[in-house]
Amino acid sequence: MQIQYILELTGTCFFAVSGALVANKKSEQDWFGVTFIGFITAIGGGSIRDILLGSYPLVWVDDVAFLYAIFFGILMTRLFYSFIQKRSKERFIFDTLGIAMFTILGTEKAMDLGVNPVIAAIMGMLSAVMGGVIRDVLTNEIPVLFRKEVYASACLAGATLYLVLDYFGVERNACYFFSILLISVIRYLAVKFNLTLPKFKV
Amino acid sequence: MQIQYILELTGTCFFAVSGALVANKKSEQDWFGVTFIGFITAIGGGSIRDILLGSYPLVWVDDVAFLYAIFFGILMTRLFYSFIQKRSKERFIFDTLGIAMFTILGTEKAMDLGVNPVIAAIMGMLSAVMGGVIRDVLTNEIPVLFRKEVYASACLAGATLYLVLDYFGVERNACYFFSILLISVIRYLAVKFNLTLPKFKV
Amino acid sequence: MQIQYILELTGTCFFAVSGALVANKKSEQDWFGVTFIGFITAIGGGSIRDILLGSYPLVWVDDVAFLYAIFFGILMTRLFYSFIQKRSKERFIFDTLGIAMFTILGTEKAMDLGVNPVIAAIMGMLSAVMGGVIRDVLTNEIPVLFRKEVYASACLAGATLYLVLDYFGVERNACYFFSILLISVIRYLAVKFNLTLPKFKV
Repeated sequence: MQIQYILELTGTCFFAVSGALVANKKSEQDWFGVTFIGFITAIGGGSIRDILLGSYPLVWVDDVAFLYAIFFGILMTRLFYSFIQKRSKERFIFDTLGIAMFTILGTEKAMDLGVNPVIAAIMGMLSAVMGGVIRDVLTNEIPVLFRKEVYASACLAGATLYLVLDYFGVERNACYFFSILLISVIRYLAVKFNLTLPKFKV
Repeated sequence: MQIQYILELTGTCFFAVSGALVANKKSEQDWFGVTFIGFITAIGGGSIRDILLGSYPLVWVDDVAFLYAIFFGILMTRLFYSFIQKRSKERFIFDTLGIAMFTILGTEKAMDLGVNPVIAAIMGMLSAVMGGVIRDVLTNEIPVLFRKEVYASACLAGATLYLVLDYFGVERNACYFFSILLISVIRYLAVKFNLTLPKFKV
Repeated sequence: MQIQYILELTGTCFFAVSGALVANKKSEQDWFGVTFIGFITAIGGGSIRDILLGSYPLVWVDDVAFLYAIFFGILMTRLFYSFIQKRSKERFIFDTLGIAMFTILGTEKAMDLGVNPVIAAIMGMLSAVMGGVIRDVLTNEIPVLFRKEVYASACLAGATLYLVLDYFGVERNACYFFSILLISVIRYLAVKFNLTLPKFKV
């Protein structure tokens, strides 16, 4: 339980940072706008997962620590703005770790609620990507998963690996580790070699 | 129960096809993007209805057959892409049958949960149109129900007929038949004669 | 209970009017489009609050009076269209009172459900602003809270005052009065003197 909780708080904080950066790049927002977008980005995916699963109370409604993780992320973004802006490689790493963690935790939560594994993998992916999708819809952007599609499909691949390892009784922390690693490696390779999925209509 | 289930699966499959076609027309998407949009179009309306009604578990979360109906629809879209693209009349028929079925099933489900009939009719309409609305929001289109308004109002008319027939004790399959027929006829006439509703401000 | 109910119905009606006006200004909509947008604007914020809190049944699903309040608002908008259009000052007052009432009622409802006060204030704000946000997303506008940011932050300030007064045992109607007054005064001053919050990145 402990490691799960720390991963979830950390992922929430990373998401808030990434939301705040996107909000401020789009147009020069005030404090409130940036905080709101950071907040929505951080809680959106998990909320949609829990609402679809009917799993109440929502994590952040029940435990105010998630809110503080978000505020902490926003504050750090402000304090180290130009530092963070310049480090695009580090930002990529944090963003990737964030979606990887959320995918695996979301998949696990759905499995705990007894849904079909295929549904659980979809729930994991939605946890990871829907925060960014809502962020993009609110700021009138084309949603992220139609711009860089390996994004969400990397999550699906990681969720699938998690379910396979879990099925074969692999110890949970190892399941976490290898699935998060797979998502990260796929995203790294996709960006490095500019990989894309095949077009629907050839 | 049986006929209801088959109608719902069939409607879900039709919606996935229509979502996939729209997604791919908008811009040449990859497999993942098209599948995601097909999925959202197919499950969006019913999910919003169930979330608003607090009716858990959501249909597609509980029964993985809906997911397979979606994947089947996407696969068919790919295999018969140019065939389906050319048959705009047949596509119109499938689309109309899809929204008609979803409207009636949504209205019936809401009634079974004991809400006021006016609310039930709205829930039926939302089941039918919100999948397309979410699809349009995600792809940055003006939502379908502000472009062709007879669309959603046809659903409301069909839902109302269903409620009236049901109130007077008409046998259920006959209720289904006549309400679905009404929605289809209204849409057909609206498109054929280019009918529109009166403007709000004359 | 009584005053709470009347405030909520009145606020719902005000929101429907404001939604209908925005929908019709954007492009000349038909009756259905205007009614739909008025409806979504009026029930959106409260629905999101209740869905996030898992508080079922949703207010308007349970009590059809809210629907009639919306239809009444739309009808009034039509009957007195040019009158309402011209009175921008009065519209501002109604709009401000609407968001102020929704903020306080939403905050109170969340507190009654036992959440942390910080979460309750956020729920109050979301009740007030999300209807307008959904309206703007559906009509492809930049959401209201990124255009006039003192809007949502005024709600947060009012919710905070409500929680402080309530904490110190102030009588409920007085809590209502002073919090609604604060939100109104902040919005008035912000518009009058064109105040904005500080930018995130100076």
